Amino acid sequence: MLLVGVGELVTNEPGPGREGGPLGIVRDAAVLVEGDRIAWVGADTHARERVSRHPGRDDREEGEEHRELWDDPVDVVDLAGGCLVPGFVDSHTHLVFGGDRADEFAARMAGRAYEAGGIRSTVAATRAASDDELRARLAGFVAELRAQGTTTFEVKTGYGLTVADEERLARLAAEVTPEVTFLGAHVVPAEYADRPDDYVDLVIGPMLDACAPHARWIDAFCERGAFTPDQSRRVLEAGAARGLGVRVHGNQLGPGEGVRLAVALGAASVDHCTYLSDADVAALAASDTVATLLPGVEFSTRQPYPDARRLIDAGVRVALASDCNPGSSFTSSMPFCIAVAVREMGMTPGEALHAATAGGAAALRRDDVGVIRAGARADLVELAAPSHVHLAYRPGVPLVRRVWKDGAPA
Amino acid sequence: MLLVGVGELVTNEPGPGREGGPLGIVRDAAVLVEGDRIAWVGADTHARERVSRHPGRDDREEGEEHRELWDDPVDVVDLAGGCLVPGFVDSHTHLVFGGDRADEFAARMAGRAYEAGGIRSTVAATRAASDDELRARLAGFVAELRAQGTTTFEVKTGYGLTVADEERLARLAAEVTPEVTFLGAHVVPAEYADRPDDYVDLVIGPMLDACAPHARWIDAFCERGAFTPDQSRRVLEAGAARGLGVRVHGNQLGPGEGVRLAVALGAASVDHCTYLSDADVAALAASDTVATLLPGVEFSTRQPYPDARRLIDAGVRVALASDCNPGSSFTSSMPFCIAVAVREMGMTPGEALHAATAGGAAALRRDDVGVIRAGARADLVELAAPSHVHLAYRPGVPLVRRVWKDGAPA
Ligand SMILES: [Zn+2]
Ligand SMILES: [Zn+2]
Repeated sequence: MLLVGVGELVTNEPGPGREGGPLGIVRDAAVLVEGDRIAWVGADTHARERVSRHPGRDDREEGEEHRELWDDPVDVVDLAGGCLVPGFVDSHTHLVFGGDRADEFAARMAGRAYEAGGIRSTVAATRAASDDELRARLAGFVAELRAQGTTTFEVKTGYGLTVADEERLARLAAEVTPEVTFLGAHVVPAEYADRPDDYVDLVIGPMLDACAPHARWIDAFCERGAFTPDQSRRVLEAGAARGLGVRVHGNQLGPGEGVRLAVALGAASVDHCTYLSDADVAALAASDTVATLLPGVEFSTRQPYPDARRLIDAGVRVALASDCNPGSSFTSSMPFCIAVAVREMGMTPGEALHAATAGGAAALRRDDVGVIRAGARADLVELAAPSHVHLAYRPGVPLVRRVWKDGAPA
Repeated sequence: MLLVGVGELVTNEPGPGREGGPLGIVRDAAVLVEGDRIAWVGADTHARERVSRHPGRDDREEGEEHRELWDDPVDVVDLAGGCLVPGFVDSHTHLVFGGDRADEFAARMAGRAYEAGGIRSTVAATRAASDDELRARLAGFVAELRAQGTTTFEVKTGYGLTVADEERLARLAAEVTPEVTFLGAHVVPAEYADRPDDYVDLVIGPMLDACAPHARWIDAFCERGAFTPDQSRRVLEAGAARGLGVRVHGNQLGPGEGVRLAVALGAASVDHCTYLSDADVAALAASDTVATLLPGVEFSTRQPYPDARRLIDAGVRVALASDCNPGSSFTSSMPFCIAVAVREMGMTPGEALHAATAGGAAALRRDDVGVIRAGARADLVELAAPSHVHLAYRPGVPLVRRVWKDGAPA
């Protein structure tokens, strides 16, 4: 497949002649896809000329670059001046669960306080759901994400909180994504409320044994009311010892040690990052740990937004993700997260798009997604807009026109 | 067409056995559509029973209510427990224009001040566009609105500001909606900058003559920097004398006389309403004038949101609309407006949905839309959600699954 007529191509690969800094924008571009990969990125005029010469191997020029790419017939798709961006990478979701919490949401919007018991109500509904019920629900979310341009997504466990239930959540998640995170340390379940350390023993013992085979990542909710820094460290180190990459929920509801713990453990990402000291910001800036911001949470809970501007200006690598979950952020829309990040968190539209694509890829330590360059996965989103700026300029409008995942229409 | 399996039907018609106050929610409902109108609303079980008895006129019961409705074969559409709501009524848009202002938006988000010259740049682009260019653009917006569940919408002129240009904007708008508003008094064009009263003379003279035949409404932007209360009154009274209904842009950027002028003139709606005195609120509450709130504007300009809670608690009738325009609010998404109104303006999800449907209808003085009852237009929206609460609970997610406009799939 050859995409031509791309008025604005956001590659996330800066280079000579490209615009928009880290966005690496190419004007009047074309993208050649072969199988599940991007084969070539270049000028629209060049691509059209090559295709018009096709077929015929007789007119090969000596030493011609990429010659072999143009030997086979190709489906040409004309974007007629539209905008093409990398598929969104949503590096933080909680999509395997039962029930919803619409009533709790409505009560919160009417001014009732956020109740910590919320997660536990989803735990109860999740435990009560059959595998097939959870699988059907998850399939619905996957379709929803895909239609909105999300081509890579992470899914966490954390609504089972027994060995058997966490294992099946990890297994079901692994059916739809390679990016599965074991989050047994989401909240201390009611049955362990007065002996949280015993629950941590369970998490790092039989629960980790059951979940690790399905997971790529370990995560812990390091926050007052959830797990202490010491408990979180035990969980994360146990996961790392099993070969899982580390991610952390931290500094969401108040200052804390989550960010420094994440950096100390070489975590790929620390997520939320609302309450940060200057030392936290400096530690992040000096690390390879991505700060993943989740504006859907603050939108849906009326909590203060994290300060993306401060992080970016300090040199911290930032990602945006949805945190899609039934309690604190039930959006699955990366364009919505971009619009809110621009409105509320001091990001430019370009920074927000970059964070929602290349940023998410960095938070998952992936170099094959979130970027449009030869060799990367052909995960592409066509916008019904002339420019990526419209993702923030036109909030709420479904601008995702066509999506390709691994080169196939989604 | 018979819609069955409606798990939650929002009728906007309160009544015995119905829930949600003004929403008039019916559980497990069915809706019969004949031609472009709703013919019957009732219980799912009743509808299924009647359809299963069909065909055959022999089993008519004596004096049977609505008997004739069930005589003809009917297409049955099963919503499988989903939610059905009235089509959104967007009572405030500026959809006929040329160009866009993405660069101005990006600059504003980067902290540069809002420039009053913005409207004039759209005026220049609009004047330069051909009828066919404007028509194609407008058709694109109409499709976009429809896909997002908006089945009735108003369109204002106001980017022409010459007799010929305003006339063609009114004429083009009238091709796509009966709700056309003549807004020659949008801004004083550059060529009249030092003699605004001469411009008002033009508006109420030859421009009104040219536009009135295409329009149902007259509007004026009564705000510092736009038109004074006296100028606005002259415009609005001239329009009213030509049989146009009155609407006002007022109290957006600061306190002012817009609201009181609107009430004094019996306007159908006064729009923006951010800066209101207690006297303004009391005047609105005692009037038939709807306060139309436009949360997309505040979202996209970082201005303070109007206080919907205060208005509702005072008994003021409130509508939500998009104000879709390339300068201050380029969203066309009524679900987005609902989500922001709940987050920022103190509305419940139900109040916001009501304002985006029945409220918009009241702001257009329409009783055939914004409501699901026998005799009303069959303008219906199926949500990919079990409840209307999800419109706010799942911000940014395209929850509009199917749309019927005048009984036809949109
Ligand atoms: Zn989370
Ligand atoms: Zn307006």
